[in-house]
Amino acid sequence: MIVTILGTGLIGGSLAITLREKGVAERIIGVDNKPENLQRAIELNIIDEGASLEDAMLRSDLVVLAIPVDALLQVLPVIMDKVRPGQVIMDVGSTKEKILDLVAGHPNRGRFVAAHPMAGTEYSGPDAAIRNLFTHKTMVLCDVKNSDDDALEMVEDMVDKLQMRTVYMNAEEHDLHTAYVSHISHITSFALALTVLKKEKESGRIFELASGGFESTVRLAKSSPDMWVPIFKHNRHNVLDVLDEHINQLQQIKTLLEEEDYDAFYKLIQKSNKIRKILK
Amino acid sequence: MIVTILGTGLIGGSLAITLREKGVAERIIGVDNKPENLQRAIELNIIDEGASLEDAMLRSDLVVLAIPVDALLQVLPVIMDKVRPGQVIMDVGSTKEKILDLVAGHPNRGRFVAAHPMAGTEYSGPDAAIRNLFTHKTMVLCDVKNSDDDALEMVEDMVDKLQMRTVYMNAEEHDLHTAYVSHISHITSFALALTVLKKEKESGRIFELASGGFESTVRLAKSSPDMWVPIFKHNRHNVLDVLDEHINQLQQIKTLLEEEDYDAFYKLIQKSNKIRKILK
Repeated sequence: MIVTILGTGLIGGSLAITLREKGVAERIIGVDNKPENLQRAIELNIIDEGASLEDAMLRSDLVVLAIPVDALLQVLPVIMDKVRPGQVIMDVGSTKEKILDLVAGHPNRGRFVAAHPMAGTEYSGPDAAIRNLFTHKTMVLCDVKNSDDDALEMVEDMVDKLQMRTVYMNAEEHDLHTAYVSHISHITSFALALTVLKKEKESGRIFELASGGFESTVRLAKSSPDMWVPIFKHNRHNVLDVLDEHINQLQQIKTLLEEEDYDAFYKLIQKSNKIRKILK
Repeated sequence: MIVTILGTGLIGGSLAITLREKGVAERIIGVDNKPENLQRAIELNIIDEGASLEDAMLRSDLVVLAIPVDALLQVLPVIMDKVRPGQVIMDVGSTKEKILDLVAGHPNRGRFVAAHPMAGTEYSGPDAAIRNLFTHKTMVLCDVKNSDDDALEMVEDMVDKLQMRTVYMNAEEHDLHTAYVSHISHITSFALALTVLKKEKESGRIFELASGGFESTVRLAKSSPDMWVPIFKHNRHNVLDVLDEHINQLQQIKTLLEEEDYDAFYKLIQKSNKIRKILK
């Protein structure tokens, strides 16, 4: 089939590479408001051609929306109005409530499938696109009861071919859980980077000393604000809630350290060790 | 030469494996207050034999102290009193001021070399010991002016054979910088794990959703309290200082989100992106 990818960056580009490789897409049309991204995506053989959204929509079976969630809110009403019969629109945005509210009750609502691949890296743009970004990762499909059966089947079939696991949730659950397992991790990384950059003037010393542990907790701080500010904006309520709890936990640790209550600190670390059961 | 490793866990065990492999040690004696650790280290061929500290010290050219820093403070005075001529004592502890204060002015001070390999994993015990844990990592050597030339040379030669880079610092600098690049990362991971464990009753959902980003920021929360509580205790002043700053940064982000000042939030993320210059 012919697939249009709107947004030829990390997620859209990686998807394009894999859809072609797995034989899902015979032809891939790229749409991007940055001409240099389209040019680069063609050079990297990620897409076959660049086109305008209007033109691309006339010629594709599946349109994947892989742009930051604020831009998605802008363009989605236009796209929903232009859907042709049999065509499927799918987004891969990191928040879901606002997006699904926007399309609720639209006459073409059934053609839309809301998806969120739980995969990414801290890099962005077509050059960040990689093979197998999604392999063995989870694809969340949201509020699928409102999608037409054939539209859902097309997406589920694609998810299978990407070798991903599928998890079904409603939009509200999705936004709550991703605040915990994704959004807060980014906030702590940004804050940790700011802390270290502020305190450590001699960055040479950081470079010399930084080991795997530091790199692992801070690497998400390389992530693009273009992608992340809209996510925090969309999921503000949940993110604030979990951020509050996280600050409380840090303050509790601080108090134990101030009061030199090392027995309680020991127990707290033991409790946090229970994350072993969740992480592989 | 004959090397004694006091503490046959992650660090001591990994060092033993590599010292043998690189031909630095002809024989490795393990000392551990847990007999089951010694037994396991022999089974895993990490050490050649287990012995008492007293016996091991009579027979070894180099004694490496790889036990938690609180236990180290207990045993170090005994060891320093028993050093034989030509013998070298080296620690690999994560904090340095208290340790070097303790040996300051000791008649055998010159035989002691204070070292800290900037390498580790979130696992512990002999089974966590791995080859190449130290390869291409940094070894910090502290206050080397107080070590005898031949003792320092023995350690420097060993560090070379481990294919590590050497960085020289005084104890005060060491404890300050490691608070930023190592200790705070562990605190944020512990707090993040506690946050998620508290908020997410349905841990199945975390398991389904948790992707690389979450795992990377939380994996340090698997670390042992036996190792980390003593580190936080020893480096309490610096850790409190950086923790304060980190909480401030998180509170600033929280305020921006509460006030919906997304422009300022965007700029803050851009600023944190500068960590790219420091991380590879």
